[in-house]
Amino acid sequence: MKKYSEMTAQELEQERKVLADEYRRYQAMELSLNMARGLPCRDQLDLSMGMMDALYSGADLSCEDGTDCRNYGVLDGIHEAKVLLGAMMENHPDNLIIYGNSSLNVMYDTVARAMTHGIMGSKPWFKLEHPKFLCPVPGYDRHFTITEYFGIDMIPVPMSPEGPDMDMIERLVAEDDQIKGIWCVPKYSNPQGYTYSDETVKRFARLKPKARDFRIFWDNAYCIHHLYDDRQEHIIEILAECKKAGNPDMVYKFASTSKITFPGSGIAALATSENNLVDIKKQLKCQTIGHDKVNQLRHVRFFKNIDGMHEHMRRHAEILRPKFEAVDRILEEELGDLDIGTWTKPHGGYFISFDSLPGCAKAIVDHAKKAGVTMTGAGATWPHGNDPEDKNIRIAPTYPPLNDLMTAARLFALCVKLVSVEKYLENV
Amino acid sequence: MKKYSEMTAQELEQERKVLADEYRRYQAMELSLNMARGLPCRDQLDLSMGMMDALYSGADLSCEDGTDCRNYGVLDGIHEAKVLLGAMMENHPDNLIIYGNSSLNVMYDTVARAMTHGIMGSKPWFKLEHPKFLCPVPGYDRHFTITEYFGIDMIPVPMSPEGPDMDMIERLVAEDDQIKGIWCVPKYSNPQGYTYSDETVKRFARLKPKARDFRIFWDNAYCIHHLYDDRQEHIIEILAECKKAGNPDMVYKFASTSKITFPGSGIAALATSENNLVDIKKQLKCQTIGHDKVNQLRHVRFFKNIDGMHEHMRRHAEILRPKFEAVDRILEEELGDLDIGTWTKPHGGYFISFDSLPGCAKAIVDHAKKAGVTMTGAGATWPHGNDPEDKNIRIAPTYPPLNDLMTAARLFALCVKLVSVEKYLENV
Repeated sequence: MKKYSEMTAQELEQERKVLADEYRRYQAMELSLNMARGLPCRDQLDLSMGMMDALYSGADLSCEDGTDCRNYGVLDGIHEAKVLLGAMMENHPDNLIIYGNSSLNVMYDTVARAMTHGIMGSKPWFKLEHPKFLCPVPGYDRHFTITEYFGIDMIPVPMSPEGPDMDMIERLVAEDDQIKGIWCVPKYSNPQGYTYSDETVKRFARLKPKARDFRIFWDNAYCIHHLYDDRQEHIIEILAECKKAGNPDMVYKFASTSKITFPGSGIAALATSENNLVDIKKQLKCQTIGHDKVNQLRHVRFFKNIDGMHEHMRRHAEILRPKFEAVDRILEEELGDLDIGTWTKPHGGYFISFDSLPGCAKAIVDHAKKAGVTMTGAGATWPHGNDPEDKNIRIAPTYPPLNDLMTAARLFALCVKLVSVEKYLENV
Repeated sequence: MKKYSEMTAQELEQERKVLADEYRRYQAMELSLNMARGLPCRDQLDLSMGMMDALYSGADLSCEDGTDCRNYGVLDGIHEAKVLLGAMMENHPDNLIIYGNSSLNVMYDTVARAMTHGIMGSKPWFKLEHPKFLCPVPGYDRHFTITEYFGIDMIPVPMSPEGPDMDMIERLVAEDDQIKGIWCVPKYSNPQGYTYSDETVKRFARLKPKARDFRIFWDNAYCIHHLYDDRQEHIIEILAECKKAGNPDMVYKFASTSKITFPGSGIAALATSENNLVDIKKQLKCQTIGHDKVNQLRHVRFFKNIDGMHEHMRRHAEILRPKFEAVDRILEEELGDLDIGTWTKPHGGYFISFDSLPGCAKAIVDHAKKAGVTMTGAGATWPHGNDPEDKNIRIAPTYPPLNDLMTAARLFALCVKLVSVEKYLENV
């Protein structure tokens, strides 16, 4: 098919009419589909129903060390949960704290603590004129929401398939001691599905930040969330690499089982250096007596070990792979030749990142919405929801059943075409 | 027996020797008993094992409204959990947020949020010179730890069996706009087991605080934790009373199932006004996607309704009542005539509050410790662990098996006598 950029005004107008007719046919279908958030679908949730039987009234709810998981105590989590999530995160159990159901909550608390009490004796961030975070973009909206809530300035840093622009990061953190952190999703990144290269991770570990309380917020949300057994991606383990580089305290690493068992009913973990753990526990012991040990035990009894987890993730992948492939195939069929959009082809994680022509993303999402398909809000992948080129759209293909997803993807591609044609018509 | 205050130096010395011999016999027993914290005992925990079967692999984990509890979402908790805990707290479900496993964590977060963001638009507390809290004493150490952590000044307010000194509270909050809150355990108070009188609650509701962001932190931890069916104590519902008094937004009310099902694996709740809820949710949606709905559902399916909860609490009482009665009986037997200590006789809750002669509490707890019985640290019931008269000791009779508890109580009474005799000898 002829590219829109090569069409005459008349051809564009003709194409617009065809597309608008098709769009109206979709509207008449009164769809109600959702590709907005990274929700596991029902089939995925069913994979973990066995966990509901892992503990039962006749079971002994004691840990290996004899601790009764039903009672108070154990601030930093039961040992066997540290072993399990440590294996998942590639960290020593002693470097972990096991938390409650939400790693996002752990990240929020980590920023909140630094705001009011600083980090390892540093000045509390609320006393600074302009504490700042670096934000690789497009990125995860809920990260940006946390820093926005605390009035922390956010500096966008461009992403490439290798990870964020390390030249820029190295320069900024070295010269500005108000830069206190950076949000990273290093593996199967949200929304691109990129995995940071070895070079990128090594450069992270060797940063020379001017601020001694600069921390990398390493949200390893998709550490074992592969789509393909034979195309698994790997990242260098950042804690060890930082230690080697003489920066042992520079990283907070987060993970959870939210997209392994049940979102909202999983367990979260933080891995970091001994110094950081001591610093964190000073606060944590004021905040709570301990997190839900019964649920920690439930996860351990269900998976037994990391092999059980990997096997479980293969079953997730069997459900998700066809969905990611269907979206890619449809976008390829509909948009392949047109030069009006590019998208990523992740090997893991939960999202596909789509870039339209500049100035089109909001209109595309709006068109999709009006035909019954909800996408993540355009701009959400940027701090303050402000995508300066208005071109990035996050596609979340996991939740709808495959048939619905294909309909939604087809409609989405149609909206991309329609809005792009209108864009070209404006400029003729 | 002759009172120590009436003994000659010689008689006191003779008594000291007898007591010291007895103390050495206890030491030789190499006891290891714990009356330090309000831990439910194993028999109590066993009462809730049925909850582990409330959800199972074949169960439908959907709410009444169709929400799949296994997936993300529902920031403020599932409706049926609000109904259940609303009934427990005597509040309308719409006034509740259901949280995770720890009401202490909710209280911490509530103070943390006020520190960084104020309350309903007020100036963030970290910007104040000296934010202050009123602290009825003796009180709950973990409350004081939270305000201490945030550098909030704490003003002790004396407690009586009717509740805290309302004259003092009315005067202080009316004249000082830096007083931002007060910690209350209004029913079966920690550590006394006192229940605030109707008059006290009404005066709370009618406070005229100078600070518009003054809040009563109403920790109703023991709302249905009666020891006696026929001596149940009741308090006036504070939210309704505040509303009546024209102070609808003045209270945050906290509760949890920590001492109903499993500590650390229960569900917590906050009840407050619509305005406060809106204010809180602005922050909460940045902090988490939602709390553990599966565990909320598990609690609802287990108890079914408030009647199930009350029935369950009767079984707890059957286990706890003999323990409270044994401690009281032993203290009566050992100390009844001696005028060297007073203690409370609660009808519910988790503690007995003991007052020794001034200047003796630390030494008593220390003596008990050295003979193998751990008590709550002396002073813990006061802000900064500083009991100015060094006389209050919290007794937690719930955890040890009855026989052990009786041994521990007997030893405790012995320590009281020994330290008191030594005190009198010093002053002879």
